[in-house]
Amino acid sequence: MTTLSARDTILKLFRKTKGCFLSSAQISSELGVSRNAVWKQIENLRELGYQIKAVPSQGYQLVSSPDTLLPEEIQIDLETKCIGREIRYFPETDSTNLQATKLGESGAMEGLVVIADQQSQGKGRLGRKWISPPNVNLYASILLRPRILPSEAPQLTFLSAVGICRAIEQLAGLNPKVKWPNDITLHEKKVAGLLNEMNSETDQVNFVVLGMGVNLNMSVGQFPKELAYPATSLAIELGHPVSRIAFTRALLHHIDLLYSDYLLDGISTVRKAWTERCDWVGRRVEVNCHTQIITGVVQGLGNDGALLVATECGIIEEVLAGDVQLV
Amino acid sequence: MTTLSARDTILKLFRKTKGCFLSSAQISSELGVSRNAVWKQIENLRELGYQIKAVPSQGYQLVSSPDTLLPEEIQIDLETKCIGREIRYFPETDSTNLQATKLGESGAMEGLVVIADQQSQGKGRLGRKWISPPNVNLYASILLRPRILPSEAPQLTFLSAVGICRAIEQLAGLNPKVKWPNDITLHEKKVAGLLNEMNSETDQVNFVVLGMGVNLNMSVGQFPKELAYPATSLAIELGHPVSRIAFTRALLHHIDLLYSDYLLDGISTVRKAWTERCDWVGRRVEVNCHTQIITGVVQGLGNDGALLVATECGIIEEVLAGDVQLV
Repeated sequence: MTTLSARDTILKLFRKTKGCFLSSAQISSELGVSRNAVWKQIENLRELGYQIKAVPSQGYQLVSSPDTLLPEEIQIDLETKCIGREIRYFPETDSTNLQATKLGESGAMEGLVVIADQQSQGKGRLGRKWISPPNVNLYASILLRPRILPSEAPQLTFLSAVGICRAIEQLAGLNPKVKWPNDITLHEKKVAGLLNEMNSETDQVNFVVLGMGVNLNMSVGQFPKELAYPATSLAIELGHPVSRIAFTRALLHHIDLLYSDYLLDGISTVRKAWTERCDWVGRRVEVNCHTQIITGVVQGLGNDGALLVATECGIIEEVLAGDVQLV
Repeated sequence: MTTLSARDTILKLFRKTKGCFLSSAQISSELGVSRNAVWKQIENLRELGYQIKAVPSQGYQLVSSPDTLLPEEIQIDLETKCIGREIRYFPETDSTNLQATKLGESGAMEGLVVIADQQSQGKGRLGRKWISPPNVNLYASILLRPRILPSEAPQLTFLSAVGICRAIEQLAGLNPKVKWPNDITLHEKKVAGLLNEMNSETDQVNFVVLGMGVNLNMSVGQFPKELAYPATSLAIELGHPVSRIAFTRALLHHIDLLYSDYLLDGISTVRKAWTERCDWVGRRVEVNCHTQIITGVVQGLGNDGALLVATECGIIEEVLAGDVQLV
């Protein structure tokens, strides 16, 4: 975690002057600190990956910014009502979901976003591991406090799925598909996964953490060989890297819009948008639940987030948990 | 939290000799420590409320034990399969639910029980406060890891309600009633409350914390005057105090049995036992939900823990959240 006031102020100055030189005197008077302290902040920015030119008589010039997911970079022109008004960034952490849960327990506000460059214990569904190398992807968790019942919380998984799809469509112009319950694919390969966790009482949700991992710039060689499913990244599909900052900003924007709509009108918009991106609708699948195997044709998404499967006996089964495969 | 090996060993020796004197030499050889160290342990026990007589030529004699909820006292003759095999005791803590949640997140085993003598932030339903003075009541939380769906977790609230009722019936011979969703009453006065919390993923419960507060020996004067509801304790109803240790042991025993049965056969036993103790079945109630007020006749408990209310239009409403009152 980092607090950023001085760094933030210098970056804002650089942005205002749009590539011009800023004198050390100018910065030191804006910050109210010594020129030596300014020099230290500049060094600090360089360590974070900012390229800053120093010319003795002219001052400092910002040459380039790194694609590091720093809150002050993501928040530039971020026009959300709720999501991302506060962002906590960790260069490395155990898991963003764990951090967001801890912050949720100590009373953090709705809309808080936790981002890590690298996760040592990235979590997938059902206790599986989520590969989380540094510098390439997005690992984020969003804290929400909707006034809903615990049984309604699964709906939010589909909200984050749609938010990620829209960000991929906007930023990369690709056509992502959703796989029930919590994957996003490109050409049948996993590009993003969701792990939503909830803390609730019997009849009230305390908070929900929307966890998401999106493979943005990961290269083929970075995927472990023993991976159980085919995986990809936006960069692999596009043939060039994407801006992690721009992607994150777009994602927060779309989730903010979807969440406002959800609080106002319920799950209908999310359900429609999710179903449009599910190309298993109308196809035969096999669902492996704990206790039984269900075979049938996918009908769509139920109100509570269940996968609706029409069996041969003409019954619509509402599948709330299980692994689904095409047959 | 306390670790207890030396203390535990001495207490076991005292119990084995059934009121006879134990020589200092005997204790020091059993413990493998010096006689001075034995003396320190005896002092420690005295501070915890144990009355121990010391006679120079004979040694130490246990005269009486305090009614403190120490794990080693509760675990005497506790024949449970799962619940209370590990007990953590706090003389004072914020809330046993918070502590159990923290332990759950760090991987604690199913069946762990957290007990506090006193809670500074005792929690009731919907963020309400649970009055938690020291030395008189039971504040406990039980950690469970059932393989169930998040939507099934409310069932466990009714399991703890039935467990508390059975312990009251066994220990005090009184007839407790249940009030949906999470109260236990004696003569229409609240004697115990439940606050179950859950940590879950979209399609899997990670763990559930069954939180319970039972007014055992609280006196009339200890209830705050501004209490929103009439309250009582076992001691007030009986006219004499009850053993907190014996009550806790009985409670863990009943919850252990109910939980084994629940894992094997589902909610049916709990539902039957709960409904038998609900004297609102067949009576007219008004349910104040977030969005509407439902009036109708209570039919019983639904499979998912909903209160079933038959309205005048002949519809059975499944109430999952709300405050219920007789009309």
